[in-house]
Amino acid sequence: MTTTAGALSGLRVIDLTRVLAGPFCTMMLADLGADVIKVEEPGKGDDSRHYVPFVNGESAYYMNLNRNKRGVTLNLKGKGRDILLDMVKHADVIVENYRPGTMEKLGLGWETLKQINPRLVYGAVSGFGHSGPYRLRAGYDIIGQAMGGLMSTTGWPGGEPTRTGTAIGDVLAGLSVTIGILAALRHRDQTGEGQKVDIALVDSVVASMEIITQIYLATGKVAERIGNRYEACYPYDSFQAKDGRVVIGAANNKLWALVCGVIGHEELIHDERFDTNPKRVQRHAEVKPLVEAWTREHTVDDIVERMLTAGVPAAPINTIDRIVKDPHIAEAREMFVETRHPKGGPLKLTGSHLKMTATPPSIRTPSPLLGEHNEEVYGELLGLDAEAIARLHREGVV
Amino acid sequence: MTTTAGALSGLRVIDLTRVLAGPFCTMMLADLGADVIKVEEPGKGDDSRHYVPFVNGESAYYMNLNRNKRGVTLNLKGKGRDILLDMVKHADVIVENYRPGTMEKLGLGWETLKQINPRLVYGAVSGFGHSGPYRLRAGYDIIGQAMGGLMSTTGWPGGEPTRTGTAIGDVLAGLSVTIGILAALRHRDQTGEGQKVDIALVDSVVASMEIITQIYLATGKVAERIGNRYEACYPYDSFQAKDGRVVIGAANNKLWALVCGVIGHEELIHDERFDTNPKRVQRHAEVKPLVEAWTREHTVDDIVERMLTAGVPAAPINTIDRIVKDPHIAEAREMFVETRHPKGGPLKLTGSHLKMTATPPSIRTPSPLLGEHNEEVYGELLGLDAEAIARLHREGVV
Repeated sequence: MTTTAGALSGLRVIDLTRVLAGPFCTMMLADLGADVIKVEEPGKGDDSRHYVPFVNGESAYYMNLNRNKRGVTLNLKGKGRDILLDMVKHADVIVENYRPGTMEKLGLGWETLKQINPRLVYGAVSGFGHSGPYRLRAGYDIIGQAMGGLMSTTGWPGGEPTRTGTAIGDVLAGLSVTIGILAALRHRDQTGEGQKVDIALVDSVVASMEIITQIYLATGKVAERIGNRYEACYPYDSFQAKDGRVVIGAANNKLWALVCGVIGHEELIHDERFDTNPKRVQRHAEVKPLVEAWTREHTVDDIVERMLTAGVPAAPINTIDRIVKDPHIAEAREMFVETRHPKGGPLKLTGSHLKMTATPPSIRTPSPLLGEHNEEVYGELLGLDAEAIARLHREGVV
Repeated sequence: MTTTAGALSGLRVIDLTRVLAGPFCTMMLADLGADVIKVEEPGKGDDSRHYVPFVNGESAYYMNLNRNKRGVTLNLKGKGRDILLDMVKHADVIVENYRPGTMEKLGLGWETLKQINPRLVYGAVSGFGHSGPYRLRAGYDIIGQAMGGLMSTTGWPGGEPTRTGTAIGDVLAGLSVTIGILAALRHRDQTGEGQKVDIALVDSVVASMEIITQIYLATGKVAERIGNRYEACYPYDSFQAKDGRVVIGAANNKLWALVCGVIGHEELIHDERFDTNPKRVQRHAEVKPLVEAWTREHTVDDIVERMLTAGVPAAPINTIDRIVKDPHIAEAREMFVETRHPKGGPLKLTGSHLKMTATPPSIRTPSPLLGEHNEEVYGELLGLDAEAIARLHREGVV
């Protein structure tokens, strides 16, 4: 854990988010140096504190997404609401991922908060956004993936629509609200005007569909599921190796010739059945076994090395155990960082993927214990002393 | 097309990017109001100008990703290099997605550019990043998805690792470099110090794996492919309907009871085989046909309506043709915007998913014709007149 001041140092963020999409955003803000104050329900905390896997009783799920944050407890109803409004006066940003309408019911909606602090940037993440007929529907990751079109295009011919193996709807929304917040801060710094950023999981997935949507809008063609190959070139696909699967990406005739050389079938280069990309795409079911006859006899690492040496793009289809010990990903790019939590003990977390020369993001502090920074934060922001905080605790406010 | 000044108005971006990950970033910056000057190779332009589908001879792929940008042509070798260095003096941001080392070979690497303009923010997107042993490998989307672990966790038990149906590696990297650039701009505005942001497709995919990686790091368990269900609860999965597939998300006993009510099998609520989440997960292969016996008799829309009415999260697995006419996504959230291109004519593009109250992103201008803004941009930034530009054109510089 290092102590570099980050690009966002000096920025104060009040974080009402829970579980994944929201905390993923505030994790990036915290990694970038912002002072993120995570506000949790007294006695209970973020649901993800109770998610497996646990390390010495602490959730690794929570520890990863909430490193670098300070933690306070606050019941947002009653007296707690007034405390939050006081904190908002001292904040640059607030982020929440409640169902739309919840903040208004708590008396903490954007219309109220901007009266308290017109310079505030308010980031909201929800399943369907804060407008429109579906806004009150529950918006889990799988629902974002399903409604945004991603599942319909992922999978195999004749097979089922397939969800992406990670919570990509939450991740896309978390990245997107971070962009909206940072852009809004730039406008705020130049004009003094805060605003609300309203990001939906479904919109974020729709935005990720990009050319697939554009093909439909331009031609009326609905994308089909075609497994790992692409419509434009072949062999650009996954192949069975002796010990796993491998990706080979031969996008043109030159690369096809190189592939033929590596697999020892140079006679295929000028074979009239396969000598253009359109022919290879059309006959992909014939090309695949020709390549696979060779790949099945070799290991993934051997195939990747031979293809790369010949100048053909290739990659292992990594499982997690390979990634965490990969010399490039784990070591050179430092994508996994050894940390120590006061209760959980030593644990590797996923490092920041935002590599910056002057202000590199860093993991400086472990995730907070529930209410760990109550005295520090409420003292610093609101001038409350230990006795006042103890009283609020007895009253169930913090 | 509206003319709202965006959150990033006043920001000038020099855009050397091609095809997808880089242009997706500069598209967001342009949608947010930045002045993005896209620099393309004279006579040829961005490869994606030649990608299907075409509308009246113009690529819809290009038109979508390059709306709101101004376009100039420039040969980055020889005299063109000096012109780019002059432009860099007048820019806040430069973005490129060449293979690492290419900018240095052109004499345009970060170490050179920061001498010219120490306030510059330099955003780079590549397959593997600008450091580490794999940095010179070709980094296509499928390679990011394969090496970052996403393919290994997407798909079905006994089936193959599966790529996500959109170029999610490119999209994740495009979103991530946008975050890095905006954070670096904040640091620049406060300190005067520019920097380089170095984003890898592979790192971005690794970051998206999040809890899947954390489970391995905490327990040593490597994630398996389990289709559309989740390990924590059931029935939380996709189901066959009469006319397609639908997602139902019953995450707890209360929701399970509601599902049993909707499918007309209330006797299942207290059936000892299924009365806890762990039991339902263990017996998911028995639960699925019980639910599917009912879903097969109903349409997707009917199932979604009945489940939502009962309080159970549910969603259609939308294909693109459904999304573009969905009253929430297309209409209320305005995710598709009617535009007009001077050559391509009328075309719907994907709107911005970044919804902001004070400075809403907008599509103001169509994608540029090749070199369309040469006179305007070179005049404005460098004071070149039409004759000087014509001479540069004859010399093959622009």
